[in-house]
Amino acid sequence: MTGSGSQDARAAAAGTAPSPGGARAWARYFRRVVPYVPGEQPAGDRLIKLNTNENPYPPAPGVAEALRQMDAGALRRYPDPTAGALTNALAARYGLRPEQVFVGVGSDDVLGTAFLTFFNSDRPILFPDVTYSFYPVWAGLYKIPYETRPLDADFRIRPEDYGGANGGVVFPNPNAPTGCLMGLSEVEDILRRNPDVVVIVDEAYIDFGGVSALPLLARYENLLVVQTFSKSRSMAGIRIGCAFGAPELIKAMLDVKYSYNSYTMNLPSILLGVEAVKDEAYFQETVGKIVSTRERAKERLSQLGFAFTDSYANFLFIRHRTVPAAELYEVLRAHRIYVRYFSGPRVSDYLRVTVGTDAQMEELYRFLETYLNGR
Amino acid sequence: MTGSGSQDARAAAAGTAPSPGGARAWARYFRRVVPYVPGEQPAGDRLIKLNTNENPYPPAPGVAEALRQMDAGALRRYPDPTAGALTNALAARYGLRPEQVFVGVGSDDVLGTAFLTFFNSDRPILFPDVTYSFYPVWAGLYKIPYETRPLDADFRIRPEDYGGANGGVVFPNPNAPTGCLMGLSEVEDILRRNPDVVVIVDEAYIDFGGVSALPLLARYENLLVVQTFSKSRSMAGIRIGCAFGAPELIKAMLDVKYSYNSYTMNLPSILLGVEAVKDEAYFQETVGKIVSTRERAKERLSQLGFAFTDSYANFLFIRHRTVPAAELYEVLRAHRIYVRYFSGPRVSDYLRVTVGTDAQMEELYRFLETYLNGR
Repeated sequence: MTGSGSQDARAAAAGTAPSPGGARAWARYFRRVVPYVPGEQPAGDRLIKLNTNENPYPPAPGVAEALRQMDAGALRRYPDPTAGALTNALAARYGLRPEQVFVGVGSDDVLGTAFLTFFNSDRPILFPDVTYSFYPVWAGLYKIPYETRPLDADFRIRPEDYGGANGGVVFPNPNAPTGCLMGLSEVEDILRRNPDVVVIVDEAYIDFGGVSALPLLARYENLLVVQTFSKSRSMAGIRIGCAFGAPELIKAMLDVKYSYNSYTMNLPSILLGVEAVKDEAYFQETVGKIVSTRERAKERLSQLGFAFTDSYANFLFIRHRTVPAAELYEVLRAHRIYVRYFSGPRVSDYLRVTVGTDAQMEELYRFLETYLNGR
Repeated sequence: MTGSGSQDARAAAAGTAPSPGGARAWARYFRRVVPYVPGEQPAGDRLIKLNTNENPYPPAPGVAEALRQMDAGALRRYPDPTAGALTNALAARYGLRPEQVFVGVGSDDVLGTAFLTFFNSDRPILFPDVTYSFYPVWAGLYKIPYETRPLDADFRIRPEDYGGANGGVVFPNPNAPTGCLMGLSEVEDILRRNPDVVVIVDEAYIDFGGVSALPLLARYENLLVVQTFSKSRSMAGIRIGCAFGAPELIKAMLDVKYSYNSYTMNLPSILLGVEAVKDEAYFQETVGKIVSTRERAKERLSQLGFAFTDSYANFLFIRHRTVPAAELYEVLRAHRIYVRYFSGPRVSDYLRVTVGTDAQMEELYRFLETYLNGR
């Protein structure tokens, strides 16, 4: 598949397009995008929410303590535009220098800034056909030509597909929504094929059993590793994403960011983010619990007749051998168990199920067993 | 002055430009921007910080209380992408419907999104030559052609300059860094001259004595009013900006925003922002104090030999009749009183002095009196 700015309708909207509102000539110059409907965020206590890959455990105890101790009076001042406390904490945690760390408002902000900063070639950037849905959106927004590369029959990325003349490469590892993991040697294979462009490894889910590409930073100055606080650090509500790379890459991203919005990380993000990074024991404990629950889920779901990719993320990508995914999605929803269903090509047979607590997952298995037996 | 994407070096960087890092071919495709140095944020107790237009008073007491009561556990979930609690509070405060309200990460985020959403014409957008420095930056970022219109000799916007064929209009009221205010009839004059494009009134400083253009929303569907929590609401550290407009304008901005970053307002922003909006009495009290201090400052500074625009903002734009601004900036700085000095054309004779507390301002007058007498 090839695309080039398909989301961007500036050209189509300008000049000759009819004014949608009759007399409202000004509406002619609106940027038209494919309207996005935010994911379902059902409210209430009696529900099991396994649809947005949130962590079932609260953030580190230090986060609650920092909230209690935060000085509201300090909010009258602008926050540190460098978010120095947070970048220093991340650098210390990962054995990097602060000038190798960039932080932004969620990994979407970080990835969008990286696209804007690094993908300014006339050649197409490359990413998988089944992957994070925002890659083509940012490419459209910034008029970056792109080509997708199909996953293989087992939903795996083939490193050999990511070579040749291109404007850059981006892929998640583990991939979404499949959870499939590449080993470090495969990631390095892609880097070796692309010495002349920036390669972005989107590691939103790496902490749940994968091996991060961070050690490769020592040898590849064109590598950018992106992570998030929304999954393994239980802080989707605080909106923190981060990128690690050579100082030259980070400086280029900072220059771009400062040039259009100097202050994006608010004071609570900086203060609470530091606490999440500092508590390594809690991080390991909660991640360990999720990994255990996920591996148990593979056994249980297999017994219930499901097939799935070997996910290394905090979700499972599952397909029942006889019952359609759309049907299961609806009956689960009616039972107030929320999972994610994608209707796109190649994935419409599957459900993406976030790994919750053991208790939540047991209720899922119980319901599925009853439903599948009574069908 | 005319510009068109001068900040954007994609064309220059692509293809034939030499690789800055020798072997680092990937660096050839970096977006090159004019590096921005964030404003000075000096630390320490023994200083008077009048350089970034922060409010000298803390946020409303309810903000501190909401911090104490915030449930850290709720941070594990994604925040409400619509920031509904905050948009509802703002709608109630200003007598609007929630679908007339947009919120973003500071007014820079809101203004940037508005530029991206509304300014897609091939005709140039118009703004003053002396104004907020990010307007030409966003125009460059999104490749929006623009033209500037000179302020008159008294640093005033001339409404009659903002007519004719154009792609949109944006101006701050009061203007920055002059503080000069236009009355509602002048703002309406600009709207009447521009029925076919979106007109953005950037009201970052409107609460300090100006009359907001919000009542004009009832008659002008192409008007967007942008405000911020960073000045009159004492919350620069939380990063909240907002826009008010016809539902069609707000929906277009939301569609664009959701299309590339769904979750930008973090949970603390939403919860603390609501508290700031709810406490109208505290808001009026602190704004009133700043206005009183500013009006007293006009008298005192006049006695000390300063000339200035008639600022309606929380800052003064002052010029001494005999002593150069650059000299005063330096001696104040040496005395740990920080003000802002701009070296650009037309403004290099001036200092921008944020209105602090009465005590801070008294120390400023004392120092200036001593210095000017002893010079």
